Amino acid sequence: MKIDALKLLYQAQKQEALNNWKKFLSFPSVSSDQNHKEEVRNCANWLIDYLKDMGMETELWETSGHPTIFATHCKAGEDRPTLLIYHHYDVQPEGEESEWDTPPFEPVTRQDQLFARGAQDNKGQCFYTLQALKALLKAEGHLPVNIKLCIEGEEEMGSPGLAEILIQKTEKLRADSIAIVDGNIPSKSTPAITLGTRGIVTFDVTVTGPKFDLHSGMQGGVVANPAQVMAHILSSLYEPKTGAVAIPGFYDTVSEIDINIRKNLHFDFDEQAFTKAFGTASNGGEKAFTPNERAWLRPTIEINGIHTGYGGEGFKTIIPSVAKAKVSCRLVPDQDPSSIEHLLKNHLERQAFEGVKIEVTPHPGGGAAARAHPSSSIVKAFEKSYEAVFDTPCRYILEGGSIPIVPKLAKVSGGDLILVGLGLADDHIHAPNEHFGLDRFEQGFLLMSTLFYTLAEETSHSL
Amino acid sequence: MKIDALKLLYQAQKQEALNNWKKFLSFPSVSSDQNHKEEVRNCANWLIDYLKDMGMETELWETSGHPTIFATHCKAGEDRPTLLIYHHYDVQPEGEESEWDTPPFEPVTRQDQLFARGAQDNKGQCFYTLQALKALLKAEGHLPVNIKLCIEGEEEMGSPGLAEILIQKTEKLRADSIAIVDGNIPSKSTPAITLGTRGIVTFDVTVTGPKFDLHSGMQGGVVANPAQVMAHILSSLYEPKTGAVAIPGFYDTVSEIDINIRKNLHFDFDEQAFTKAFGTASNGGEKAFTPNERAWLRPTIEINGIHTGYGGEGFKTIIPSVAKAKVSCRLVPDQDPSSIEHLLKNHLERQAFEGVKIEVTPHPGGGAAARAHPSSSIVKAFEKSYEAVFDTPCRYILEGGSIPIVPKLAKVSGGDLILVGLGLADDHIHAPNEHFGLDRFEQGFLLMSTLFYTLAEETSHSL
Repeated sequence: MKIDALKLLYQAQKQEALNNWKKFLSFPSVSSDQNHKEEVRNCANWLIDYLKDMGMETELWETSGHPTIFATHCKAGEDRPTLLIYHHYDVQPEGEESEWDTPPFEPVTRQDQLFARGAQDNKGQCFYTLQALKALLKAEGHLPVNIKLCIEGEEEMGSPGLAEILIQKTEKLRADSIAIVDGNIPSKSTPAITLGTRGIVTFDVTVTGPKFDLHSGMQGGVVANPAQVMAHILSSLYEPKTGAVAIPGFYDTVSEIDINIRKNLHFDFDEQAFTKAFGTASNGGEKAFTPNERAWLRPTIEINGIHTGYGGEGFKTIIPSVAKAKVSCRLVPDQDPSSIEHLLKNHLERQAFEGVKIEVTPHPGGGAAARAHPSSSIVKAFEKSYEAVFDTPCRYILEGGSIPIVPKLAKVSGGDLILVGLGLADDHIHAPNEHFGLDRFEQGFLLMSTLFYTLAEETSHSL
Repeated sequence: MKIDALKLLYQAQKQEALNNWKKFLSFPSVSSDQNHKEEVRNCANWLIDYLKDMGMETELWETSGHPTIFATHCKAGEDRPTLLIYHHYDVQPEGEESEWDTPPFEPVTRQDQLFARGAQDNKGQCFYTLQALKALLKAEGHLPVNIKLCIEGEEEMGSPGLAEILIQKTEKLRADSIAIVDGNIPSKSTPAITLGTRGIVTFDVTVTGPKFDLHSGMQGGVVANPAQVMAHILSSLYEPKTGAVAIPGFYDTVSEIDINIRKNLHFDFDEQAFTKAFGTASNGGEKAFTPNERAWLRPTIEINGIHTGYGGEGFKTIIPSVAKAKVSCRLVPDQDPSSIEHLLKNHLERQAFEGVKIEVTPHPGGGAAARAHPSSSIVKAFEKSYEAVFDTPCRYILEGGSIPIVPKLAKVSGGDLILVGLGLADDHIHAPNEHFGLDRFEQGFLLMSTLFYTLAEETSHSL
């Protein structure tokens, strides 16, 4: 089918798609919060029924955590390529509900944007893939390529469960190509393929002092204050002058990116648009690099939260008994996640302060950085599809975020990796008021449906 | 009356006193939380009725904040001394209610200790004074000295309202001596007079970055992270090697304490008891000084709280939009509170990081350190009274905590200052499970009633 026919197909199912998408978003499938365990399961059950109704064969893969959904439609024939598409149905915690204009799990359309936790990341992007498959199956009864869907429930916590069962699912996951549809484009009018992601490791840092909060007058200056020790050790992670990470050995394995990849990358950065979108300048981190270089090609350490002592109205003159922080590192190729875990843990824990205990606990589920091959069929097919939908040249970018399961999944599938998507930097993913544009939902539908035809052609050409 | 008669008097009113004390504690008179405004007022109203019933003349002094209660019984004659006694009926916030074994505003007696917020600080200490006055008035119909009570409602927030009206109340507050009954003794069996307190200034520190939380993958390394900036600027307050405050000029006006006071001070410190009570060592702060020197004679900066970003279960990979901290300084004589406010504010705010804004807001109600004169009648009278109750020599100590109103109130009253009380370091004041011993409640009753007779004698001797 050509793009004009696909547009008609989109319009025909638009209202029904929107209703089902809203239903999908109404499940508070927050994977990292054990209190939401049942709701994650409810979401998975709803989704598997939805895939069955579309005409796909489905399996629910139990893991040590939340289940993964596996669905296939492999009737295009053995001469046609098999594409494995990855999505996730879990979402980030909603954070402070008071900061949302409307409740995070009551999806609402305002100014042609759908607002809800997961509206973009990744339920929105997942749902345009599903709607493309559903509409094609309904209209044509078949698909031009063999499709496998892997929709997991623990992406936002680093995919520990799926990672554990990958090897035993090797046969099922085997594919010629694997598309991770959880990515961004640089702007509304600029299509782009993501050639790689950063890796990630995350930590809880705890500084424990007195066995209860002390009076800061009576014991102020007498005991080591856990809040002060926390500020000190977190501050020690950075070189204030260069903005670089100060842990010895952190950059040891960081190599320059392949020159062939680097020359294709689109490094333009719109400082004015950035400042407008985020209300801050793009000048944190390492001073020696540009913003996109820092986000794509350089590893970082970020403090994601610090909580200690009194934070309410007024004042409470205490020395807190305990201080807690959440810290994460973004990694680039050749940085080994477990080596970085050791480096950071040792760096923080060896800073002994008498009277306090420093504990660094890596979370499970970290993962390495990932890279795609620009010359693969899947990259070429997506490039053409993006250009058909956007009518403008497609660019190559990298992604600063991490999907730890990606390099593991790509290896098991044996397919060529690609990372795509239609997210925008100001969709507020992981933040209050997450949203996704209805225009981009349509573009996603068109992108994926075009891709199935283009990939079939692209592969037959290269045979 | 002699001590044995007073003991009988205590027993006669013990049960009724305990009931009324519990009623007093059941008011959640948290002054620093605007949500408790009405309950602070209810507590004041209950207390003023109680004082009236005791036979005291009462006044409710309205302030810009919570009211102060002023009550007098000045019928001992002009030749008898006038003693102004200071207490406060407001309490610290209860903190996390889940950390209390029993609810903070439902007083309960366990193992001869009364548990409640304010059980010691200061409702418990206030109530033994009131019961001593009540019992003497009931038994004798008069008091050996003229008594003025000033019981305020904003001590835990630095007494801003009372401070504003002090000058207009000069005549009413005039007294020969002023006793601040909000202090500690070194151990259950060691009576002590407190010859001074540290001063205090408190601050809110806010670091504001992006206008909403960002994704730490997409913007990690790109923008300045407010949590990181907060750790950096708070860490800059200290010299890690010496443990000293690192703000230039902070120690400029700090002078050695008067040698005559110093030689009388009881500097013994029981490290083992300290470690057992608090579960931490006494080796924070400036390495060049002993624990009691650090608590009494040296100024400090303490971080009382830091709150930024995610702190829940699991992980949230964000760059927080804002980081907030609460910081306080304890001051020694000759440190001017407003000069220290300026020093700290300038030190933190001048650390410019592009993309974030650093704001330091001093809270109102700070105050200077205070010192008593060891040779005054009131110090001598309390020394004798303590020794009568405890049957062991009374010591002189200092207090690391602060009552900012004290130096101001002492100046207005024109009287000789003394700080006394029966608190212990492990009463958990300002913390969950605050408590006060019933034995010390009785000792307080005996101390105050003995004091009234001793002060009358002491003064007639010195005439």
